[in-house]
Parts: sequence; structure tokens; C-alpha cells
Amino acid sequence: MSSIPDVFPLRHILSASQFTREQIETIFAVTDQMRQARDKRQALDLLSGRVISLMFYEPSTRTSQSFQYAVTHLGARFVGSKNAGEFSSAAKGETVEDTVRTIASYDADLMVMRHKVLGSVAKAAEVSPIPIINAGDGPGEHPTQALLDLYTLLRLGADREETTLVLNGDLKYGRTVRSLCRIIIRYWHGAPCPIRLVLCAPDAFRMNNDILAELRRAEISFEETADMEGALRRADFFYQTRLQLERLTDEEEKRRANLVATDFRLDDRHLALMRPSASILHPLPRVNELSPELDADPRAKYLPYQTRNGMLVRMALLTMILRPDYVAQL
Amino acid sequence: MSSIPDVFPLRHILSASQFTREQIETIFAVTDQMRQARDKRQALDLLSGRVISLMFYEPSTRTSQSFQYAVTHLGARFVGSKNAGEFSSAAKGETVEDTVRTIASYDADLMVMRHKVLGSVAKAAEVSPIPIINAGDGPGEHPTQALLDLYTLLRLGADREETTLVLNGDLKYGRTVRSLCRIIIRYWHGAPCPIRLVLCAPDAFRMNNDILAELRRAEISFEETADMEGALRRADFFYQTRLQLERLTDEEEKRRANLVATDFRLDDRHLALMRPSASILHPLPRVNELSPELDADPRAKYLPYQTRNGMLVRMALLTMILRPDYVAQL
Amino acid sequence: MSSIPDVFPLRHILSASQFTREQIETIFAVTDQMRQARDKRQALDLLSGRVISLMFYEPSTRTSQSFQYAVTHLGARFVGSKNAGEFSSAAKGETVEDTVRTIASYDADLMVMRHKVLGSVAKAAEVSPIPIINAGDGPGEHPTQALLDLYTLLRLGADREETTLVLNGDLKYGRTVRSLCRIIIRYWHGAPCPIRLVLCAPDAFRMNNDILAELRRAEISFEETADMEGALRRADFFYQTRLQLERLTDEEEKRRANLVATDFRLDDRHLALMRPSASILHPLPRVNELSPELDADPRAKYLPYQTRNGMLVRMALLTMILRPDYVAQL
Repeated sequence: MSSIPDVFPLRHILSASQFTREQIETIFAVTDQMRQARDKRQALDLLSGRVISLMFYEPSTRTSQSFQYAVTHLGARFVGSKNAGEFSSAAKGETVEDTVRTIASYDADLMVMRHKVLGSVAKAAEVSPIPIINAGDGPGEHPTQALLDLYTLLRLGADREETTLVLNGDLKYGRTVRSLCRIIIRYWHGAPCPIRLVLCAPDAFRMNNDILAELRRAEISFEETADMEGALRRADFFYQTRLQLERLTDEEEKRRANLVATDFRLDDRHLALMRPSASILHPLPRVNELSPELDADPRAKYLPYQTRNGMLVRMALLTMILRPDYVAQL
Repeated sequence: MSSIPDVFPLRHILSASQFTREQIETIFAVTDQMRQARDKRQALDLLSGRVISLMFYEPSTRTSQSFQYAVTHLGARFVGSKNAGEFSSAAKGETVEDTVRTIASYDADLMVMRHKVLGSVAKAAEVSPIPIINAGDGPGEHPTQALLDLYTLLRLGADREETTLVLNGDLKYGRTVRSLCRIIIRYWHGAPCPIRLVLCAPDAFRMNNDILAELRRAEISFEETADMEGALRRADFFYQTRLQLERLTDEEEKRRANLVATDFRLDDRHLALMRPSASILHPLPRVNELSPELDADPRAKYLPYQTRNGMLVRMALLTMILRPDYVAQL
Repeated sequence: MSSIPDVFPLRHILSASQFTREQIETIFAVTDQMRQARDKRQALDLLSGRVISLMFYEPSTRTSQSFQYAVTHLGARFVGSKNAGEFSSAAKGETVEDTVRTIASYDADLMVMRHKVLGSVAKAAEVSPIPIINAGDGPGEHPTQALLDLYTLLRLGADREETTLVLNGDLKYGRTVRSLCRIIIRYWHGAPCPIRLVLCAPDAFRMNNDILAELRRAEISFEETADMEGALRRADFFYQTRLQLERLTDEEEKRRANLVATDFRLDDRHLALMRPSASILHPLPRVNELSPELDADPRAKYLPYQTRNGMLVRMALLTMILRPDYVAQL
């Protein structure tokens, strides 16, 4: 007998907004199982014989390697293109649609795609004979990051009572905080959300209005502030964002971003202000907005806990897409 | 008992001109078996424990990935260098001869090599202790592409009766059409060839005289034309070529090449002119010489049929070189 | 019963100077076993289920591929980043400490790291939850190269009697000859060393004083000379060094280095001067300081013998670190 509802199979993973609460709960239940197996270093040959295509048109170590380990730990193999945009048919002018149809003709079982152009992954999925997981499409979506962040919050107790989640820093360009807001909306859709959001950013890097409007419509409680210390004192979860300097082209914006990095930096002077039970999260990699001095504090959950969750969630997704029979047996 | 003649083992695959008809027939018989196994998603661990070196000194997704999947589906593993020219000992000045001898000393079982310099792969083969497959040496040979094209033609019925094969577009720089002519010559060497070639190109991009002379010597029937519509009406097989813009350095030539792309482009206006039984082929990747509007037409055989054949032919070659015992049992 | 002493487990491999003689002897005994298994093409699934991270922040084919084959022949799998500095979180400013902790959170079993900054690998090791092997840190250490060179010398008989080992060419920048001196010091620490070193270089490329002082302290017999022919006549082992042109930034130094390449080049004119029993070694890849004319001479041991030893030593190290139980049973 299984407690996992029959809401599957999953196919393409394109957006943090595509999931129902039931689906997310199933993904996280499978993620828990992946953790148990990995913690015991137990071999999981669930995807033995399968081949996963990793097409990364944009540099990425974090996401790319996390998928590579996820694939490997499941007994599958990957064929990768780490800099697909530069050293590939793409340089000869090939569309993502042709690429995915070709790779599917080689019997890839699934493609993980990162692309710098918004919407490219969805375009590929439209013609794809095989499931596609969006590993980030430029300023657009990064659904597996949203899932791992929500999983981290929930497993650290975010749904047990009223909790304050501070999102701090560059909320304008930070793709992960935008996706996190959206998956929170999906997860508590039609139910009271125990999370109160504190969106803490300097004026030039406030969260965009589209997300604010979505939060309002979903009746998620939130407030905006630029008072980092005040936010810090109240935080149950303090989610620090990475400066997306590589997405800024304007020199004036870069200058202001550096100010964010200084003024909204988290370091050991802040530890005394934080609740003993609080958790510090960060999507990594970090630059200087999060001091390594914090790493030894027990409230630092970004490394290895949060990063490992990324791999485990990806293992769960791969399994659920390619082995719905396995999930059905749980 | 086996219908496969004893013409093996194969060793290096360097040129489309190296094969006898018997060898090609065997390669294609093994390719058929690979297709049957793959269509059933049947595990083929014929090369379990083997390690294949992929040395690509020139960017290539299509060929490189097709080999990677071929290796993986056979249960072997690959060690790859996707941009060998830039990030490797080659940058320190190493010769291909030293590279292949070194990789062989690591117990690679076979090397697949692409190089931008004509003749480099043959030079490596001269000193190589392990078999080498030429995956394209600049403007030179690309034998596995020739094999996959001939296999595609034959399995679509090109040898059943008199057929007209139109090669269209840039015939001067198109490496694949040159190789295809050569393997047709080899395959029907000493026998009547049922294929009549129509070489359709604007004057500046005509097939070079070397190939024309070889066709004449082999008594292969061919004609040259610049009338694409006329060719299209008669075609049983219409092989559209990709513009090799990356091989052109002269601006005037690039300008003319763009004209080819416009004037010799195949799009949905042409569908009504073509025979219902015709097949459209293309080596891919395409730029704009082949409209995606054609993809849904049942006569479009380039994707996924022709691309998949590329992987299957490569699986066959790897098996025949490394497992002659398996082939002998067929 | 085992002749292998209980001096393990090994953990990080950071420096040629870290080993005791007993450890080196065990490494070489395991290397011999690896050779026997590989020579018989015997499957060694000692590391089945293990995943090795290859983080190369600096281009390297030789070392990188040698590790890739070592991993593969042991039944393990690797997740690699061949140009980690350029296409990775490093480009976003991540430290090596964060990188190794993250990769460890993905359950990599061991990391092989090459970095262009001296000391980077040791910094990573300080925080690493998993073993790290230094595959070269800029002008610093390259311990696996030192081990393979010493193994090559010993298996060719360097410890059987008084032998003369000539190190020839660029001794100033040649990282391998520096490491080789250090491991010789370690290996014969407290025991008479049968090797007499002849350090043969032009004045501008003499071995640095730090190594000379270490040799003196260790009472290793050595002499310095610029007379290549004289050295050649006496050599039992002639270790030719590669010009490290990529480490020179000064034009004047490059000019002088080219002189070394000319004046200290080894070619077939030298063969008649050498002892019939001598061995020619070279770390490879070579540029023009070692003529391919020598390759056919039986005294040329650099290819495939010495290169293959590199892979075998690396197989031994991976096994000893990750499978101390296996080594204990020997």
C-alpha cells in the first residue's frame, strides 16, 4: 500500500508553476527515499540502461554537475554537451527543435536543457519525442531550483507553524527567489500558507511587480523592506541571493549591484542578531554577499544540506519521469 | 549458418573508398540488427568493458554525439575530448601520432578522430596500435556519413529499380555529397548501378571535376543542371546539402553561397512538384536551405530516420571492428 | 599472507614529499598488480559504484585522460570538468573550498584537481570531506607524475646498482624534474641512494637552489653541467624535459628557451653516443626537444612504457585510497 497519490506520470519539467500540490508532495516523498538510499550509499539502479542527454547552452557547474551525479547514482549514463552553444551544431545555426529531435533519434531517454534564451526550452519541448527538464532558460524559469528550495524549507520545518521567510539582496534579477515565490504560491494554492515573506532589498533591486501581483492574488502574506537588520531579527529562514552580475550589462547597474553586495552582505556580525533556530539558505555559488565565516555556524544550511537537496530532488524527478512504475509501487 | 560473408575483420575506417561491396553489405546487415535491437530497446552489451576514445579536434555535435550514443548503447564507455585542439596537449604542440600512441597506451580499444587538417587521421592511423575511425578530416573524408547515406538510400529502396537521385545545392564544398558519390561508385563497382545522378547546383557551386571524372570512369549515369524545379519533378531521392559557410573564407563566395541558400532552398512550395513516393534527405544540421515546414510531410526522411541511421551504422562499425567473433556468428 | 606493509589508508595526495618509502613501495606493488590485470585485459571492478570528480581548472590532456582511463578501467565513473576555470561556477567567483564541499555533497567519492594557482589544491583539501589528488597546481607539485617517473626508473632497474640519471634541458621551469628529485629524496631517505644525478642545463635554465639544497641535505650525489654530450655518454637514464613555454611570459626568456630546445634537443645523432643499456625518458607531451626519429630505438621508453605507467600508478592510488580493504588483502 502506498501513500503516494496517483498523479503521474510526469513528462516535461518546464516551470515552477506547472505542479499541483499533490505532485510536489510526491516529488518530495521520492526525494526522501533518494536521501535514505544515498545516505546508506545504497546502489539504486533504477535507470540502468537509460541514457540522459545534458544539453547546456550556457555555462553552469552547479546545476550541470548536480544532474550528472543524479544520473550516475541512478545507474544511468549521460551524454553531455557542456558548452553546447559554442562547440556544436548550434554554432552552425541549428534550432533547439532540430537538436532535440536528433538527440531523441539516438535513443536518448530524456533531455536536460539549459539555454540562455527565455522560452527556448519550452520551444524544444513542443516538438520533443522525449521528456525535457528545464535546467534554466536565461532570465526565465529554473524549476528544479525552486523545488529544491521548497524541499529544503519544508524539511527544515517551514510548514509546521507560522514562519518568516526573508528573501534578501538582489530580488530583481535573482531568478531563484522569483521561482521560489511561484512554487510557494503553487504549493499552498487554495490552502492557508504558513509562510510570511519579507522581501528585503534596496530600492533599485526590489522584487518585480509581476511576482508581487501573483503573491497578492494568491493571498500570500508579504512585506517589502530595505531594513536588513530588522528582517534578520525576525527571520526563521534567511534566504540570501547571489548577485547575478553576469546578467547585468549596464555599468550603472553593476555599480549599484556592488552596493547591494556590500550593504546586504551577510557576515558574522549578523549571527548574534539571528534567532537560534533560524536557517540560512543560499542557492550557491556565492560571491561576497555571504561570508565564509558563517559556514561553521549550525544555522548555515546552504552547504552541504541545501546543495545536496538539489541532487536528490533531481534524482527524484528523473525517477518519476522514467520509472513511473517504481513510483507507483511506493 | 550465416549469410554474412567472411570479409573481416575491419580495422581502420578512413575513407568511403576503402570498402568492397561485400564489406558494405555486411556493415548494413549488422546495421539492420542494431536497428532491431534498438527498436525493442534491447540491451546490447557487445562492447562491455571496452573504452572508446573520442578525439574531436574540430567542433561537431552531430557526429560526436551520434558516436557517444552508439558507444553507450553497446555497453562500452567513452573518454572524450570534444575540443581537443584547444584544451589539450595539441595546444602544447603535440602531434596526432603521439596522441594516438599515448591514448593507446591507456588501453583505449579504438579511437574516433575528427580533425580539421586533411590527412591527419590517416597519419595517426599509420602509427596507431588501435583501430581508428575517421569522423571527418576537414575538407577530406567522412566515411561514416557516406555509409549512413547509402544505407538510407538502400533501405528506402534505391536499389530496387531505376531511381533518380538528385544532389542539390552547394556541391562544391559539400563534403557529404562528394563522399556519397564515392561510396556509390564503390558499391556498384563492376555491376550496373540503378541510380542516375542529377547534380543540381548553380554554376559557382558545381561538383568538382575530380568526382565527375570518377563517376565517368565508373560508368555511373549522371547529368548536371541548374534547374532545381525540373530536378525536383524527376527525383526519387532529393538530397539537399547544407551550406558549408564555415568553410568559406572569401566574402564573395559567402555572398554567392547565400544566393544558393535562397535560390536552391527547399520549402513547402516544392512539395506539390515532388513525386508522392519521393524521399527528401539532408545530412543535418540545416541552416535555411531546408524549411522546417517540410518536416511534417511523410516524404521528409532526414529526421529522425536518416539521423538515426547514422547512429546505427556507427554501432555496426564499432561492433564489427571490436567483435569480429560476434559478426562471424551471424 | 601479504608482503604489503600496513601503512594505509592514504587520503589526500598533495605532494611528492608526503610519502614514506614504505608507502611508495606499496603503491608500486599495487601498480604491478594493475599492470598484470591490464595486460590480460582482466576486468577490475574494484571501484564499481564509485564516482570520481575530475576538476581541471587548467588544460591538460595527458594527466586528465590518464585519470579518466584509470577510473574507467577500475569500474568507477567520472564526472568531469575539463575547463573548470572557464565554464563553471569559478567564473562566477566561487572558491575551490566551496567547489569541493559542493561536489562532496553530491556524493563524489574522490576529487582529482588540477589548478593553475600554487597551493589551491592544498587549500581545497583542508576543507574537503573527500580525498583529493593533486593533478598539478601550477608551478607547484605534481605528485602522480613524480610517482610514475620513479616507478619507471625502478622497474627499469635504477635501484639494482650504481646508476647515472641525467636530467636534461629546462631544469628551472620543468615541474616534473623538480618533483622527481623530491621523490628520490623521499624514497632513499635514510638509506644510500644508488642514483647519481647529472643536472644538465644551460646556465639560464639551471635547477633552482632550493632543490640543490634539498639534494645536499639528503646526501644525494649530484653534479651540474652544461655538457650534454658528456652527460649522454654516461647516462643509464636520460630524462629529457619538455619546454614549459606556456609558463614563460618574458620574451627574452622565451628566446633563451628556444635555444635550449635547439642546443639541448635529443635526436638520432645522439643514439651512437648512448650506452646500449640506457633508457630515454620524457614526461610528454613533447615539442621539438625530443625527435620522433628516436621512437623506434629500443632505448626509447617514454612511449608507450612511461605513459602507460602513469595510468597504472593512478589506478593504484585510486584503489589504495578508496579500497584499503583490497590492499590489506594483498
